[in-house]
Amino acid sequence: MHYSPLIQQLMDAFRRLPGVGNKSAQRMVLHFLERDREGGRKLAAALVAAMDGVGLCTRCRTLSETEICAVCSHPNRDSRTICVVETPADVFAIEHTASYRGMYFVLMGHLSPIDGVGPEKLAIPQLVKRICTESVDEVILATNPTVEGEATAWYIREQLSGRELAERGLRVSRIAHGVPMGGELEYIDGSTLMHSLAGRQAMKYRDES
Amino acid sequence: MHYSPLIQQLMDAFRRLPGVGNKSAQRMVLHFLERDREGGRKLAAALVAAMDGVGLCTRCRTLSETEICAVCSHPNRDSRTICVVETPADVFAIEHTASYRGMYFVLMGHLSPIDGVGPEKLAIPQLVKRICTESVDEVILATNPTVEGEATAWYIREQLSGRELAERGLRVSRIAHGVPMGGELEYIDGSTLMHSLAGRQAMKYRDES
Repeated sequence: MHYSPLIQQLMDAFRRLPGVGNKSAQRMVLHFLERDREGGRKLAAALVAAMDGVGLCTRCRTLSETEICAVCSHPNRDSRTICVVETPADVFAIEHTASYRGMYFVLMGHLSPIDGVGPEKLAIPQLVKRICTESVDEVILATNPTVEGEATAWYIREQLSGRELAERGLRVSRIAHGVPMGGELEYIDGSTLMHSLAGRQAMKYRDES
Repeated sequence: MHYSPLIQQLMDAFRRLPGVGNKSAQRMVLHFLERDREGGRKLAAALVAAMDGVGLCTRCRTLSETEICAVCSHPNRDSRTICVVETPADVFAIEHTASYRGMYFVLMGHLSPIDGVGPEKLAIPQLVKRICTESVDEVILATNPTVEGEATAWYIREQLSGRELAERGLRVSRIAHGVPMGGELEYIDGSTLMHSLAGRQAMKYRDES
């Protein structure tokens, strides 16, 4: 069975997407060809516009159409806190919680010497310089709780361990590891459970300080 | 949480695909923006090429880049058998089995009066005319085994019930309904089981005719 060249080419293009195999690609192609040619043209135009128009924010390195992204240029965000994450998707996830009002710094990956990803590629020197030269009170290391994410967090922690920064009162924190909300202890893996015990927090009454 | 306009627009375009929600659309957008801009541009070009270049075969109405599709113009296909299906995806599915050597006719849907889909929209008159004027021996009705697909098959059967066609020896058949290969009787629905009993076939020995 051979698809005609244009259909095959479009299927191949869709197959570059993560999690899209032959069957899904065929369904996508047929959807646009049979039912929504207008949508296919719109997707093409949106792709070109985004590929050409979206770059990285020069301050925090998240995806942005402008030189400085909306978060970095927002007048009411707390510029004294920087949350360091691996990808723009993490920024979206944290922004969705609507509970964080500080700034971000996106590494665009994690340290991975085997793949040739060192501190420079993650712009860690740029991050350290920014922390050293601007009035930053706290750095929250929110890299993934994976081996590579932990290593990346520890590396950045080390870069921020200078006496000068300590004297300035810079706090460096790591997001809490523990039992996810709604989870059941019975089904949580041992490593997570261990972290959630070690990181236990005092339960405070209303008026207790 | 607001995405930047170009990202939002691209997400909206991906969300038009069947089965793609917010989360998948975001993953697709980020995949192209973070890791594969070249792929994004290729997808855009392939979309435009396919939307502009793929039409319907004038003979069988399947998707085709040429006026007559590869199957219809193939010298070794049996033009005396026509398999009637609902969509081009069905053509792909049957072609994948590599067991059918006849022609196709694609209805591009099924009869659905409530949605205003009548025989004309499915080009049934065109199909009937082709069967009446060309040397066709057999019409295989391979519409889906759904209420609408059955109704469409019966409607076409009725259109082909003329005395002239019967005298010419035209056979009109419906694909077999029954237990799918590899299935277990225990888990097959009653309607399918009923059809598979009613449609039972004699088991023939090698030399029996």
